[in-house]
Amino acid sequence: MGSKKFTLIEIANFLSSDFVGDGEQTLSSLATLQAASAGELSFIANKSYQKFLASTEASAVILSADDLEHYSGNAIVSDNPYLAYAKVSQLFAYNPEQTLGISPLASVDPSTNVSSNASIAPGVSIAANCEIGERVIIGENTVIGANCVIAAGTVIKPNVTIYHGVTIGENCLIHSAVVLGSDGFGFAPDGKEWVKIAQLGGVLIKDNVEIGAGTTIDRGALDDTVIGKGAILDNLIQIAHNVHIGENTAIAGCTAIAGSTKVGAHCTIAGACGVAGHVTIADGTHITGMSMITKSISEPGVYSSGTGMLPHKAWQKNVIRFRQLDDMARRVKSIEDKITEIKGS
Amino acid sequence: MGSKKFTLIEIANFLSSDFVGDGEQTLSSLATLQAASAGELSFIANKSYQKFLASTEASAVILSADDLEHYSGNAIVSDNPYLAYAKVSQLFAYNPEQTLGISPLASVDPSTNVSSNASIAPGVSIAANCEIGERVIIGENTVIGANCVIAAGTVIKPNVTIYHGVTIGENCLIHSAVVLGSDGFGFAPDGKEWVKIAQLGGVLIKDNVEIGAGTTIDRGALDDTVIGKGAILDNLIQIAHNVHIGENTAIAGCTAIAGSTKVGAHCTIAGACGVAGHVTIADGTHITGMSMITKSISEPGVYSSGTGMLPHKAWQKNVIRFRQLDDMARRVKSIEDKITEIKGS
Amino acid sequence: MGSKKFTLIEIANFLSSDFVGDGEQTLSSLATLQAASAGELSFIANKSYQKFLASTEASAVILSADDLEHYSGNAIVSDNPYLAYAKVSQLFAYNPEQTLGISPLASVDPSTNVSSNASIAPGVSIAANCEIGERVIIGENTVIGANCVIAAGTVIKPNVTIYHGVTIGENCLIHSAVVLGSDGFGFAPDGKEWVKIAQLGGVLIKDNVEIGAGTTIDRGALDDTVIGKGAILDNLIQIAHNVHIGENTAIAGCTAIAGSTKVGAHCTIAGACGVAGHVTIADGTHITGMSMITKSISEPGVYSSGTGMLPHKAWQKNVIRFRQLDDMARRVKSIEDKITEIKGS
Repeated sequence: MGSKKFTLIEIANFLSSDFVGDGEQTLSSLATLQAASAGELSFIANKSYQKFLASTEASAVILSADDLEHYSGNAIVSDNPYLAYAKVSQLFAYNPEQTLGISPLASVDPSTNVSSNASIAPGVSIAANCEIGERVIIGENTVIGANCVIAAGTVIKPNVTIYHGVTIGENCLIHSAVVLGSDGFGFAPDGKEWVKIAQLGGVLIKDNVEIGAGTTIDRGALDDTVIGKGAILDNLIQIAHNVHIGENTAIAGCTAIAGSTKVGAHCTIAGACGVAGHVTIADGTHITGMSMITKSISEPGVYSSGTGMLPHKAWQKNVIRFRQLDDMARRVKSIEDKITEIKGS
Repeated sequence: MGSKKFTLIEIANFLSSDFVGDGEQTLSSLATLQAASAGELSFIANKSYQKFLASTEASAVILSADDLEHYSGNAIVSDNPYLAYAKVSQLFAYNPEQTLGISPLASVDPSTNVSSNASIAPGVSIAANCEIGERVIIGENTVIGANCVIAAGTVIKPNVTIYHGVTIGENCLIHSAVVLGSDGFGFAPDGKEWVKIAQLGGVLIKDNVEIGAGTTIDRGALDDTVIGKGAILDNLIQIAHNVHIGENTAIAGCTAIAGSTKVGAHCTIAGACGVAGHVTIADGTHITGMSMITKSISEPGVYSSGTGMLPHKAWQKNVIRFRQLDDMARRVKSIEDKITEIKGS
Repeated sequence: MGSKKFTLIEIANFLSSDFVGDGEQTLSSLATLQAASAGELSFIANKSYQKFLASTEASAVILSADDLEHYSGNAIVSDNPYLAYAKVSQLFAYNPEQTLGISPLASVDPSTNVSSNASIAPGVSIAANCEIGERVIIGENTVIGANCVIAAGTVIKPNVTIYHGVTIGENCLIHSAVVLGSDGFGFAPDGKEWVKIAQLGGVLIKDNVEIGAGTTIDRGALDDTVIGKGAILDNLIQIAHNVHIGENTAIAGCTAIAGSTKVGAHCTIAGACGVAGHVTIADGTHITGMSMITKSISEPGVYSSGTGMLPHKAWQKNVIRFRQLDDMARRVKSIEDKITEIKGS
């Protein structure tokens, strides 16, 4: 994948940043300071890596002005080297040439409108009355139900399943094995069995959303499930029916969000969390990994739960005590009363 | 999706319920009280929504006799409006017309028997010696191994994978990205490496089961993994080899159930729980979200675990104390002894 | 699946074990002691099952020398009956005959090199510049991106997605709905939105690895994500970018491992655990189910977290006390001080 090459000056211009050293130095890929070899560009986003600056074999480094005194090679000077690295990484991204048009091995309903510069891979099925926008890329064996909209610039990887009535905005990226619009988990008990509640809503995914591999987003019961603009979801996340995720909120892998919950904008939810149904999470809330969120959060801040890890034997002893905590608390209160009595006597 | 229309009287008859108002009122979809507009049917299943009855624009509402005094419009009177809503929702469900028969873009082994009124979509593969029953619908790109039975009325969505030797009963609904019959996680250590235990059992799914998107159900090691009649499983659930799930048990998303565990009938297991292997859960047990179940439960009831959420700093302080709990318990005991001594002295 | 038959002597020879009884006894499948019927082979790996030896209908049993006094039938005597069972199970494994070559319903880029005795099923897509080794089997509708290597003897089940630049070693088994090489969850905040960090690394899976259904393994940001030789991963596991999993490590279902974490060799991580990013887990570490691992583990041993399950009401009381733990600890300290004061006075 080293077929793309840029000069230092080209990259500095792309970033609107200053550079130091040989502007004609050619750079063919990105690497960490430790792993970089000649011809590669690196970056330093954390002071603890300054120790690697002296010995890196990178042919140029993106760094902050403060780092310059530790480094004598070619450099791009950035206020935010990590953000600069993110932007430059896209120059080196793998973007295979797409075959425009509909593969002869795809099945597209004649009522569906596919932009002439979209790319529909072999094995894709698209049902009736969909709109597939400009520059949309749909990977192999992805299946799209009726009445869906896939807006311009969105990329859908192979083996994705999109049920009917799902709308996806512009410039989204949907990874493989994602399921969008499957039935919400809605059933009414009739006293003996579960009676299915048909899930009549859809899924609305706004612009610039990324959804990780294997994540599932259920359709709404009556209204839509909604993923806000710029939200980023990692792998194997479960978003239940009628959930709303706010703009630019980030959710890490294996988190589950139950039905009708509203997560605000600019939140971060770490991995393997569980958020109960029908709760509201304030904008700007941060939740640490494996937390169990059972109530609404109205004050932004950082929230956590769990016990943390212990060696098993120590954990066992403490867990037994946890199960006696209420009793212990009562005993402490009783002791306090007795001491008051003793001291008072 | 508003192409289906029913009169109030038709819906009342369908529910065997009484109605109030204009029986000829036409209803073309379902909506919440707050979102409903003219021509839509709504329902009220919770007294806290009575405040919306006066202002709803719905053309009819399913409600209980008690609600009638708060509402003057067209109504269907039900003992259980939520259940009535569930039943009526099915009238409005999206049921695209199916193309009967086997798509020319599907691959079906000639030894497999497909009912003439089943529907096999493009990209489907079905291996040898399967039985595909009446009215079965198999979605695009689903793959079915040899020696499977899919009984009458079952719907399998696109991109499902069913390994060999899986039996699915009547009227089941299997959502996309589900995997049924993958190998159980069975290995014997030989002192240096893991030796795979071939998984020789199958999967048996009884009638009226629904399985959510991305859920995986492994085949048994020797005997079958079994999902009982009427059980409902949400998305991204892991069911390990030789698990038995009882009839009408409901399991919410992201729960994992380890090998050989037997979950009883009429249980509810909330989302993101973990149930250890080789345990037995009594009929009628309810487990709250994110619980860790490490032992058998012989008494029905509600079970929980976890610490609940706290602001991060408060949580940090308490977690440190959790790790000292056993020590603190010993100190409390010592204090009690000293107080007895003091008071006795 | 009872079409394979072996005599007792054949199985004893296969295991290099001694046998007792009729070496010509024909055995056509494996079963538990309780379920076995005539013509079946069973095994006993746990003394608690000795009670079933007298009544089993199995035609032969794999057992240890100690068990012989409880059993008078045909037997294979093994130092490690469980390991012997694992090995014998493979004799009875389901191995359908594969059609060699590339299905006419598959799409393989002409630049890709497919071994003449590999088997590529209908609906498979393989992009440019891949190497598909000898005896590789690729199941229906699996999609493989450019520049991948699938080494000899590896089996990839249906509906798997492998992105570009993924290397899989020999004799691996990749189950359905797995995604390998999807983008790591890397984004830099620009103050308002998330800027995607192109994920330029790949995935390297070494020999003899098994990966369970629905598991996702992200590609590295710059370097590769690596799964060590002989590692076994269960279903619905999330492996983030740049994680390294050591040789022969076993990870159970629904566990999530965050970015850049290094798990050592010969570890076991039970189901539904969460391991934070950038931590290092020592070789030979064992982590119990649903544990939250937030720090590096440098000493091998058994580690745990969580509170264990309680009846809901008892749990509620204790959880409230958990949230007061720091306060209670301070009160206990205060009591101790007062008692010292009282006793000293």
